Amino acid sequence: MKQGKFITFEGGEGAGKTTVIEKVEQWLIHSKHDVLRTREPGGIRIAEEIRHVILDVAHTEMDGRTEALLYAAARRQHLVEKVLPAIEQNKLVLCDRFIDSSLAYQGFARGLGMDEVLSINAFAIEGHMPDLTIYFEVDPEIGLSRIQTDNIRELNRLDQEKLDFHYAVREGYEQVKRRYPERIQTIDANQSIEKVTEEVIRVIQAFLSYNNK
Amino acid sequence: MKQGKFITFEGGEGAGKTTVIEKVEQWLIHSKHDVLRTREPGGIRIAEEIRHVILDVAHTEMDGRTEALLYAAARRQHLVEKVLPAIEQNKLVLCDRFIDSSLAYQGFARGLGMDEVLSINAFAIEGHMPDLTIYFEVDPEIGLSRIQTDNIRELNRLDQEKLDFHYAVREGYEQVKRRYPERIQTIDANQSIEKVTEEVIRVIQAFLSYNNK
Repeated sequence: MKQGKFITFEGGEGAGKTTVIEKVEQWLIHSKHDVLRTREPGGIRIAEEIRHVILDVAHTEMDGRTEALLYAAARRQHLVEKVLPAIEQNKLVLCDRFIDSSLAYQGFARGLGMDEVLSINAFAIEGHMPDLTIYFEVDPEIGLSRIQTDNIRELNRLDQEKLDFHYAVREGYEQVKRRYPERIQTIDANQSIEKVTEEVIRVIQAFLSYNNK
Repeated sequence: MKQGKFITFEGGEGAGKTTVIEKVEQWLIHSKHDVLRTREPGGIRIAEEIRHVILDVAHTEMDGRTEALLYAAARRQHLVEKVLPAIEQNKLVLCDRFIDSSLAYQGFARGLGMDEVLSINAFAIEGHMPDLTIYFEVDPEIGLSRIQTDNIRELNRLDQEKLDFHYAVREGYEQVKRRYPERIQTIDANQSIEKVTEEVIRVIQAFLSYNNK
């Protein structure tokens, strides 16, 4: 059995993923696991350059499908240069966002179609799906208020658009979960960071003990 | 019936495409056609930047699938920003290389698989296949000798590798032709540039008169 495992973390903005992943990494290191924590583009030069093309503010005219292909290209390079070699070295890879983000955001919320976005990502990852995915489910209002400097009291039009988008992303993730019920474990991310961290650790412990039997 | 048409030109290196397309364009303009001659990335800023990532010489470590996704991304942007608006304006678009190059080069010659390369390109072009494709069929030896400063007398190892690759590209195009027999017209590109130009013009004339009936 391969010792290395590929664990991804998913969820909308303001779900607290980044903070929790850092805490989980500390706990895993403390428990003598060999861990690689990463996120795309993850310092991989080609992937960084692709990311630069995607994020260039002058690119307001970028087509949604061009963007989805660029994300898939950056994903591919990060996977083959960083993730797969680490799994090969028996590491526990913790990756902040992966294929499910593309399915929920581009496929569903941006309306490109989940099957179509899946097809280009299937080409990119060549069967290397995560062994376990932890989905941080957060109420869109709570997620949005966490990433804004002050809480939403009265919603303006832009806030409402943002909120609608957060709802669309959550619905996208709901559909992704229905597609991959075995792989994806859901955590209630409306709770405190401490509580969420505890639950994530419990899920990973169960996963590792089951897989090391 | 839409007046604008999308004509692509395909073939291995040294087939003489570029020179012939320029002559064909002159003839079409002379015959009062409204023409757009282009090739990817075609001056489209995002596509140029993607091309820059692909061609950066420091990128020797680029994975073949990353490269194929980047080509598909550049194709998408060039198509939506330049080709489709021109067709909309009833122009005759002459495009030097398009989807078939990816199928023959990446799909077959580089071994990524034609169906897989087709799947990401289908996402990129969203059904906008060329109306007509002219394939310049050239003997690999002749094609290679045309792009080298002097003719091949004794083949060294590198020449042999190049020649093997040219043969693989030609076999790739053979398979593409079997997939799309209606769309692809083959021209014997071993002949002189003048003869090839004449034949291409004859094919385009027949295509246009059939489609304008």
